[in-house]
Amino acid sequence: MVETNPNEIVVVKSENSKINTVDFDNLTFGRVFTDHMFVCDFEDGKWQTPKIMPYQPMTIEPSARVFHYGQAVFEGMKAYKDEDGKIFLFRPEQNFHRINKSASRLAIPEFPENYFFNGLETLLKMESDWIKPGLGNSLYIRPFVIATEPAISASPAATYRFMIICSPAKAYYNKPVRVLFAEKFSRSADGGVGFAKAAGNYAAQFYPTGLAQKKGFDQIIWTDASTHKYLEEAGTMNIFFRIGDKLITAPTSDRILDGVTRKSVIQLAEDLGIDCEVRPVSVKEIKEAAADGSLKEIFGAGTAAVISPVSAFEHADDVFEIPQLEASYASLFKKTLTSIQHNLSDDKHGWRHEVK
Amino acid sequence: MVETNPNEIVVVKSENSKINTVDFDNLTFGRVFTDHMFVCDFEDGKWQTPKIMPYQPMTIEPSARVFHYGQAVFEGMKAYKDEDGKIFLFRPEQNFHRINKSASRLAIPEFPENYFFNGLETLLKMESDWIKPGLGNSLYIRPFVIATEPAISASPAATYRFMIICSPAKAYYNKPVRVLFAEKFSRSADGGVGFAKAAGNYAAQFYPTGLAQKKGFDQIIWTDASTHKYLEEAGTMNIFFRIGDKLITAPTSDRILDGVTRKSVIQLAEDLGIDCEVRPVSVKEIKEAAADGSLKEIFGAGTAAVISPVSAFEHADDVFEIPQLEASYASLFKKTLTSIQHNLSDDKHGWRHEVK
Repeated sequence: MVETNPNEIVVVKSENSKINTVDFDNLTFGRVFTDHMFVCDFEDGKWQTPKIMPYQPMTIEPSARVFHYGQAVFEGMKAYKDEDGKIFLFRPEQNFHRINKSASRLAIPEFPENYFFNGLETLLKMESDWIKPGLGNSLYIRPFVIATEPAISASPAATYRFMIICSPAKAYYNKPVRVLFAEKFSRSADGGVGFAKAAGNYAAQFYPTGLAQKKGFDQIIWTDASTHKYLEEAGTMNIFFRIGDKLITAPTSDRILDGVTRKSVIQLAEDLGIDCEVRPVSVKEIKEAAADGSLKEIFGAGTAAVISPVSAFEHADDVFEIPQLEASYASLFKKTLTSIQHNLSDDKHGWRHEVK
Repeated sequence: MVETNPNEIVVVKSENSKINTVDFDNLTFGRVFTDHMFVCDFEDGKWQTPKIMPYQPMTIEPSARVFHYGQAVFEGMKAYKDEDGKIFLFRPEQNFHRINKSASRLAIPEFPENYFFNGLETLLKMESDWIKPGLGNSLYIRPFVIATEPAISASPAATYRFMIICSPAKAYYNKPVRVLFAEKFSRSADGGVGFAKAAGNYAAQFYPTGLAQKKGFDQIIWTDASTHKYLEEAGTMNIFFRIGDKLITAPTSDRILDGVTRKSVIQLAEDLGIDCEVRPVSVKEIKEAAADGSLKEIFGAGTAAVISPVSAFEHADDVFEIPQLEASYASLFKKTLTSIQHNLSDDKHGWRHEVK
């Protein structure tokens, strides 16, 4: 069944939903996808008519530049449902602006705002049954762009594909994580692409993270590549430190992702009267605070991870356990954030975006 | 027609060759591919039976990790034909070892040596008509590996595809190039993946290179990300500087690709009695040598580029033109290298590898 809707999106509906085959109580992150996907190709110098079609494998040339030169960027977003069945996005304009910022840095053409929002909202309304109400439930949304031109010269492609796929999700990390502070490996360079959600930034972290996992840690907190003295981000999350009653987090830069959850936590801290300093955070300071007992918490903040407490860190063979507090900032921010996201509390900053 | 050959490669031959549709005198790099490709999938913890099949688009899930996390590495090699119709590779063991070094850094399983060489040689024999004799002609060979697992959690994939595709080629740059020395943007960080032929390293260069092109330059010579004081490589080529009669090139590191052409030039310099220093090369030194006239040449060295002379560079708004010498080191190395590659001269180091 093919129809053209008022947004000029060509919609081809799936004949059968696979929703009844999915166990929503036992979801592994990012493995199950909904019935439909959004697809828009860039050809002849412009984005062509967008389509929503059944989620399915696609056909692509082995010479497509994305396979050879990593010309690919993405976003991570979530949709939430309240008890009345209303669907909400959380600050989606932030993701829209960021995917185009990432795209520009990777020499990928920007995607039009009306295509992005019309496509996303049309898709979410079609997939409404996949968005379950209740705190902790969400539909993870993955917009991404890949270079499809079949040519292996090392230069920007002439053709691209923008897609949105969706996967029902619980929280990414379901228990406190143990982290290593990076001493040798690096995530990004000054003047590089660390601030972008560029595909290649992630694969570069897998090997060092694997080494950390062999030592019993879940994640790495990356440090600056030049000196390894300053703590930056965790690759899938920005990082906050609580010393005494004060929060500290690193400033964004061309090495650090400008996280939507990060900036929301900074605002919520202000709302809640919690002092939050945005400044370079040294490894030395955190180790000293851990040693003298003033380090109360470390937690990560990200769309997939939400708020993820850290229970231990290692640096230079020193391991510090961080006792988990009953009334932690992490749990306070998580509750405050998810309440806003699920339409359970006031939204004084206008962060909720209802999908009607 | 499906057959199993003694190397245990399943071979499916193309019904019709497209070779007669190709204008070998007017080739654009990396746009035309030969009739067949080599494909081997990693599944269930091991590399499966390799296949050679007609070159064709492939089917892949939108959630394949390569699209989201850039888990992809590649190599660049060339096959040459002499006037007797014999086919030669140039130091292919270097490419084999390097693709596995790149793979390990990107948490991709290593590819077996016998699969690599049997696959490559079987493919080249099938594509012999595509390899034209004559200096300047070659068949560019692109082995690559991509993460195919359909799951968007940020962790290494469980399934991969190793492929080899081939494209008839002339030299990559057909005239001297004008370059910018990087002052703000960076290619790679200490502790990063700059030494690997990781897909993401290339896309990260496109935007800064585009800015350079708008200023009338072809390429960027990258500098160290921490200080931008030392010259590293050009992204598609390693770089040599000639001051007086001496050659200088930067040492390899975790930021700089260990180029096969680079190490061959260093050896050939020794053979030819040319002093070659492998040491950090500062921007200051090169600008001073350009100013006092002792900078005689800059050239790039790479498989696609072969030896590519630089005719001008810019740094901090200072532009230096480099007069092109009649009897340059660049032309000497190019002639020496291509003579070995095309079986026109002695091969005292055993670099030629005949495909029989």
